[in-house]
Amino acid sequence: MKAEIIAVGTELLLGQILNTNAQYLAQSCADLGVSVYFQTVVGDNMSRLTEALQTAKGRADLIICTGGLGPTQDDLTKDALAAFLGRQIIMHQPSMDAIEAMFSTRGIHMVESNRRQALMLDNSDPLTNDAGLAVGIALTQDQTHYVLLPGPPKEMKPMFERYAAPWISSKMNHVHPLFSRMLKFAGIGESSLEHELLDLIKAQTDPSIAPYAKEGEVAIRLTTRAGSEAEAAVKLDPMEREIRSRLGQYVYAAEDVTLEQEIVHILSSRKQLLAAAESCTGGLFSNMLTSVPGSSAVYRGGIICYSNILKHRLLNVPMDVLEGPGAPGAISAEAAKILAEQMLAQAGSDYAVAITGVAGPDSSEGKPVGLVYVGIASTQGETVVEQLQLTGNRDSIKWRAAKSALYKLWKLL
Amino acid sequence: MKAEIIAVGTELLLGQILNTNAQYLAQSCADLGVSVYFQTVVGDNMSRLTEALQTAKGRADLIICTGGLGPTQDDLTKDALAAFLGRQIIMHQPSMDAIEAMFSTRGIHMVESNRRQALMLDNSDPLTNDAGLAVGIALTQDQTHYVLLPGPPKEMKPMFERYAAPWISSKMNHVHPLFSRMLKFAGIGESSLEHELLDLIKAQTDPSIAPYAKEGEVAIRLTTRAGSEAEAAVKLDPMEREIRSRLGQYVYAAEDVTLEQEIVHILSSRKQLLAAAESCTGGLFSNMLTSVPGSSAVYRGGIICYSNILKHRLLNVPMDVLEGPGAPGAISAEAAKILAEQMLAQAGSDYAVAITGVAGPDSSEGKPVGLVYVGIASTQGETVVEQLQLTGNRDSIKWRAAKSALYKLWKLL
Repeated sequence: MKAEIIAVGTELLLGQILNTNAQYLAQSCADLGVSVYFQTVVGDNMSRLTEALQTAKGRADLIICTGGLGPTQDDLTKDALAAFLGRQIIMHQPSMDAIEAMFSTRGIHMVESNRRQALMLDNSDPLTNDAGLAVGIALTQDQTHYVLLPGPPKEMKPMFERYAAPWISSKMNHVHPLFSRMLKFAGIGESSLEHELLDLIKAQTDPSIAPYAKEGEVAIRLTTRAGSEAEAAVKLDPMEREIRSRLGQYVYAAEDVTLEQEIVHILSSRKQLLAAAESCTGGLFSNMLTSVPGSSAVYRGGIICYSNILKHRLLNVPMDVLEGPGAPGAISAEAAKILAEQMLAQAGSDYAVAITGVAGPDSSEGKPVGLVYVGIASTQGETVVEQLQLTGNRDSIKWRAAKSALYKLWKLL
Repeated sequence: MKAEIIAVGTELLLGQILNTNAQYLAQSCADLGVSVYFQTVVGDNMSRLTEALQTAKGRADLIICTGGLGPTQDDLTKDALAAFLGRQIIMHQPSMDAIEAMFSTRGIHMVESNRRQALMLDNSDPLTNDAGLAVGIALTQDQTHYVLLPGPPKEMKPMFERYAAPWISSKMNHVHPLFSRMLKFAGIGESSLEHELLDLIKAQTDPSIAPYAKEGEVAIRLTTRAGSEAEAAVKLDPMEREIRSRLGQYVYAAEDVTLEQEIVHILSSRKQLLAAAESCTGGLFSNMLTSVPGSSAVYRGGIICYSNILKHRLLNVPMDVLEGPGAPGAISAEAAKILAEQMLAQAGSDYAVAITGVAGPDSSEGKPVGLVYVGIASTQGETVVEQLQLTGNRDSIKWRAAKSALYKLWKLL
């Protein structure tokens, strides 16, 4: 099945917002086994929207539109499709009831234009909006399938996942559903990972092997069609084993979780506590950890010892380690070790991570941008310190330093 | 001038990367006074790329392509355009010389395919690549302008800004360049801001007024065409004055800087120091500040007092304030005040910010998700504490709490 994604909205054409919907739908289509050949963005304009539908109809079996289902006069997608296909616009009473109920529950007067959000085309399937008011639409005409979704991602995503994806699957000529497995990697870059698996990626047939990379995390998704979970496992297991035999030391999870989620999960199951002393990452490491719901059960807190005075005052690093001729300095294995051990003692935790380095843009203590020391102290054994030389700008060095520290901690756990 | 943006790359169609280039180019075109009516994404496929060019030619005066200028066999954009326009492909010798020089400087053997990056079309204008190897192309045929840019944003953006934008401007029927001014707001949401300025936005002619919102920051950009900076000021000044007369208390800068940049700038110019005690934001506030280059001159550091034990142990909050029947609790104005004052004393800074609250997903101390207290202590006066009730999920509450704390601090400064 060939698909085209049409995102409708003048704010996209003006560059006021980023078209994240297209990426989400493209990934989701790939997961469903649907090939996306074109993506289009068009404004809230009847004639150009009609032109986009016309062009798409000539080259796609499935046309997915997002945006333009709202209550205002600018929201034209349903009107454009109805005119394009020569269909009537009708009221979807259950959606209208839900809209009226929402306004009455909140005790707000309903502006008449909200009724537009309950409109659909005749002989079409409504797609329920669990996170908003505008109903979605799915229909087939002249062998072309049309799916209309709302623009706001928090409404669009659940509607696609729960209602549109099954509808699309039901139109496809296959019997078996998709099963996929995500292997998450840390401590290895995307290109090294691809290099190690290149023969598998090139030779892939079933299961398919897709590498993903975002914000310093790398993943491999294995996907196959099968009649049951057990049948899928027969195909997925050998491939996962082969990948693990090559890169097992970097695999931290076989599901779509972040490294910080995995660490919170491990510590939580062991009832262990963590603390952090951050210099060059300036709070990022702690921010990543505390973004995980439930992290308060394992993360005691930390000290952002950004200045030497706080390294000395709050974490007892001797001034003659930090400054003066011949001193190792704040960016040193010595300082990282003391910071980690002092943090451990002060927080009374089972583990303490210390990160000190040069985020840039300028060098510090005569040391190069990207030089970072990660120290990990624990009640279970010796303190370990590792030296890293990272690349990138200030933000990427902070990011990589924090992710590297998470990786070292995970290895130790 | 009507434009269409074509992003070329199979990785976009698969949703592996987000199409940030389209947003950048759409914004840049809006700034130039060029109207973008369509954006298209197409894969690395000769026939579909040709089809996209054909469709675009029928509806645009300017076609901007990004991607597909690299060295591999998948990089087809130049070949597709040459075939589509019936032009020869020729070598651009200065680009070839630059490529050879780069490889020889680095002492790496040059793979032959790199020569492809120096190719251009006959009778076209080369666009210099200051951040990479592939040369860009600009040309006009049959009254349609074509601009080919590389895909990687760090190469595409400087090429567009330095070479493509002036080339496009030279093809437009206007004499005057654009002047714009960015007003940055904090402490006010996008919808309230639009509501206050709706009459101005609706009646806009010259200067144009465009609201921007991203990641909790709101901005208004005023743009006009003029023969000189002074002439532009005659049009921009009255509009800026009108906006400030309505919303001046929320305007923290008249240029495109973040609130944290502005705070670092103010503190730096006064040689004052800042520290932070973070509970519910878990390091995010400090991370925002330390993302600003030069922040080490003003940010002393902080304490992430995520657990009650660290609030007590590191910041001397009495246990009977934190816990027990009738205690105000960790999420209280009392706790925020003590945290801020203790942080000030321990860091020896001029200001100290404390943030404590419920980020969710679960309530805490029987207090609702989103309840946050921000305390600010200073050597200049009384400690102030403000109570906030924020909405959103865990990440947005952390984000809004940190941004609100920055806003309160900025107001105080």
